[in-house]
Amino acid sequence: MSLAITLADIQAARSTLRDVILATPVVPAARLSAELGASIYYKAENTQHSGSFKIRGAYNTIAHLSPAERALGVIAPSAGNHAQGVALAAQLTGVRAVIVMPVRAPLTKVVATRRLGAEVVLHGDGFDDAVAHARVLAQQHGYTYLHAFDHPRVIAGQGTIGLELAEALPNLRTLVVPIGGGGLISGIAVALRALLPDIRIIGVQAAGCAPVPGSLLAGSPVACATARTIADGIAVKRPGELTLPIINALVDEVVTVEEDEIVLAIAHVVQNSRLVVEGAGAAGVAAMLSGKVRLRPGEIAATVLCGGNIDANLLARVLETAMVRQGRYLLLRTSVEDRPGGLARLVNSVAEAGASVMDLLHRRAMWRVPVDMAGVELALEVRDEAHAQAVIDYLATRGYTCERGGVGEWPV
Amino acid sequence: MSLAITLADIQAARSTLRDVILATPVVPAARLSAELGASIYYKAENTQHSGSFKIRGAYNTIAHLSPAERALGVIAPSAGNHAQGVALAAQLTGVRAVIVMPVRAPLTKVVATRRLGAEVVLHGDGFDDAVAHARVLAQQHGYTYLHAFDHPRVIAGQGTIGLELAEALPNLRTLVVPIGGGGLISGIAVALRALLPDIRIIGVQAAGCAPVPGSLLAGSPVACATARTIADGIAVKRPGELTLPIINALVDEVVTVEEDEIVLAIAHVVQNSRLVVEGAGAAGVAAMLSGKVRLRPGEIAATVLCGGNIDANLLARVLETAMVRQGRYLLLRTSVEDRPGGLARLVNSVAEAGASVMDLLHRRAMWRVPVDMAGVELALEVRDEAHAQAVIDYLATRGYTCERGGVGEWPV
Repeated sequence: MSLAITLADIQAARSTLRDVILATPVVPAARLSAELGASIYYKAENTQHSGSFKIRGAYNTIAHLSPAERALGVIAPSAGNHAQGVALAAQLTGVRAVIVMPVRAPLTKVVATRRLGAEVVLHGDGFDDAVAHARVLAQQHGYTYLHAFDHPRVIAGQGTIGLELAEALPNLRTLVVPIGGGGLISGIAVALRALLPDIRIIGVQAAGCAPVPGSLLAGSPVACATARTIADGIAVKRPGELTLPIINALVDEVVTVEEDEIVLAIAHVVQNSRLVVEGAGAAGVAAMLSGKVRLRPGEIAATVLCGGNIDANLLARVLETAMVRQGRYLLLRTSVEDRPGGLARLVNSVAEAGASVMDLLHRRAMWRVPVDMAGVELALEVRDEAHAQAVIDYLATRGYTCERGGVGEWPV
Repeated sequence: MSLAITLADIQAARSTLRDVILATPVVPAARLSAELGASIYYKAENTQHSGSFKIRGAYNTIAHLSPAERALGVIAPSAGNHAQGVALAAQLTGVRAVIVMPVRAPLTKVVATRRLGAEVVLHGDGFDDAVAHARVLAQQHGYTYLHAFDHPRVIAGQGTIGLELAEALPNLRTLVVPIGGGGLISGIAVALRALLPDIRIIGVQAAGCAPVPGSLLAGSPVACATARTIADGIAVKRPGELTLPIINALVDEVVTVEEDEIVLAIAHVVQNSRLVVEGAGAAGVAAMLSGKVRLRPGEIAATVLCGGNIDANLLARVLETAMVRQGRYLLLRTSVEDRPGGLARLVNSVAEAGASVMDLLHRRAMWRVPVDMAGVELALEVRDEAHAQAVIDYLATRGYTCERGGVGEWPV
């Protein structure tokens, strides 16, 4: 069976995209390499225009529309990176773009998409409603409907990342690519299987939305029931009709990563590579860090940081979660005497142990403590897990029995 | 008066540094450009090895030590980027490195420096103690003392950034560079004043530690009394004997930025350019965003994101502060009836207004409310400032008078 695109399509896309996209940097991941004993690189597509690779496929599609189609405009349903990719591509080509988002779409996404010149239509409760409404509007107004992944021009556009990787890393041995609908990995796989035939290509899905392994077994796209993951950029319930055969033919393996592993991976990239990634963008790092992709000693490996559009609020929560796990935040419950100076003695003891108080709740009525005692919940900032233990031990010498929340189980 | 280095020194440094450092990317700052009506780029030196430009000067210095000096090793006092730059440069050249840090140095810095193979000696209360102790150890053991900025090889090493900028942006009109001791701006200024004679070079200091403007007026280095700023990477109390004359001769202007402006700039770079910067790294962005550096319409401008070593804890707090200012977090105080269902009615009203509760404190005893009422403090997540206002207005229709904390005064 022939696949939807060839290397020549990707090479053509590259010349279409020249002067439009950034050839994003391929940066060494020094800390991850040291941890895993391999030579690992990040393709920093999170720094692409509009914050993800989506501009590549969107622009490659819009650039090839007929004058009549361009005059009528394009439409796409998306509250994510596809929305911004289409909006920017349309802006650059002077084409009208309409983006349909669910009514409850995050306002940051609405603002970012409007800022790129698109009209945003809010419709319905979920993504499926937005898709249906976009189809209706496309028919009513003659807009060209732009699929997020299941189109040859889209796949060819995303495949240009493969050309850039082959040039930057001619000895690349293993590449890990996040999979949502499969457009990114399909394009890259066609490019790299042709240019670096012996490369190992591994796909990653979030366990909370992982229809590809089952679809590969079934031999055709099978939808999964739910899409609950922090990696919203790859939370696609059903892989494509065009992308699944390419994945089947050219990808060596598809693994899944858990939410916890994605959170750790985001924090790892932020802390060690000074790059901001969203959940989808960190999925490949999660697969390597968790050992689900095993690397041979010294081998050259890479992953695509496919998106950086993470809400600041979520990023702050991810970093805080990581700090609890790394033993940098210490959560304690204890009790103090319910009389003047009772709390002061505890707080002084904390200071003597060298920890900073971040949050403190003094609760008279809430716990099963004797009536002459009051419960206290503390969130402390400490230097590391050893310091956390030292704080707990010191408080014990001062007479405080502490119950600990969270665990320091992640490496600094 | 002749300056400490020439363009030729920088060109020589470049060949010394070839294959050692990354020629870090120069990335377009799309959002900042749109906001300010200019064409602005970031030199992403935050993605350099060890997370800052310091490896350039450190390696250029160590590479030129005599065999005898290399055999004895090097020493530097630093709890910051200089520590990691020296440690990495020493590791790459097989030279022993000793880094002296104050006893209370953040453990993350100690860990990061040891990870790069350096010996860390903890000594004294402050940075001045560390400097003195490093001088003593250098004499005792014959170590070469590596200054963080006031040395010709260091300045020449940092100047290689100027060569890369001139090649990436031959029409660069205005460059904004953070100043601590002045090594970075001195090297870059020597390179660019030679290669792009008409360029405007502007230095930035944090207002909390800004000795350079006064030193320029005085004609020699004058120390400032305190160094209180989130931009610890440029918190240097006294500029160099070598760097100050270069700044005086080649830099057009030195401006200062406030803490608030730096916090906003960090969040701006993280949210819009998906790059992690520390306070010092964001100082140039702060100068442009705050209007302290004015740009002509359409002019090509750049700033050096000189470091990305921000603690995850601090980054999370910066993002949260930014969200309060952007109106994404809404802090409210109000009161409810102190009877069953009193709080429930408020929380239901919040939900009806479409806001999420992040923190809630129900305080019976704390405020001057009637005895049949209880005070409530709320931290809510809202979509934007308009939504924040709508939440307040809706709560008013339900009978809740709210006092608001923080202000939504920063753009999304």
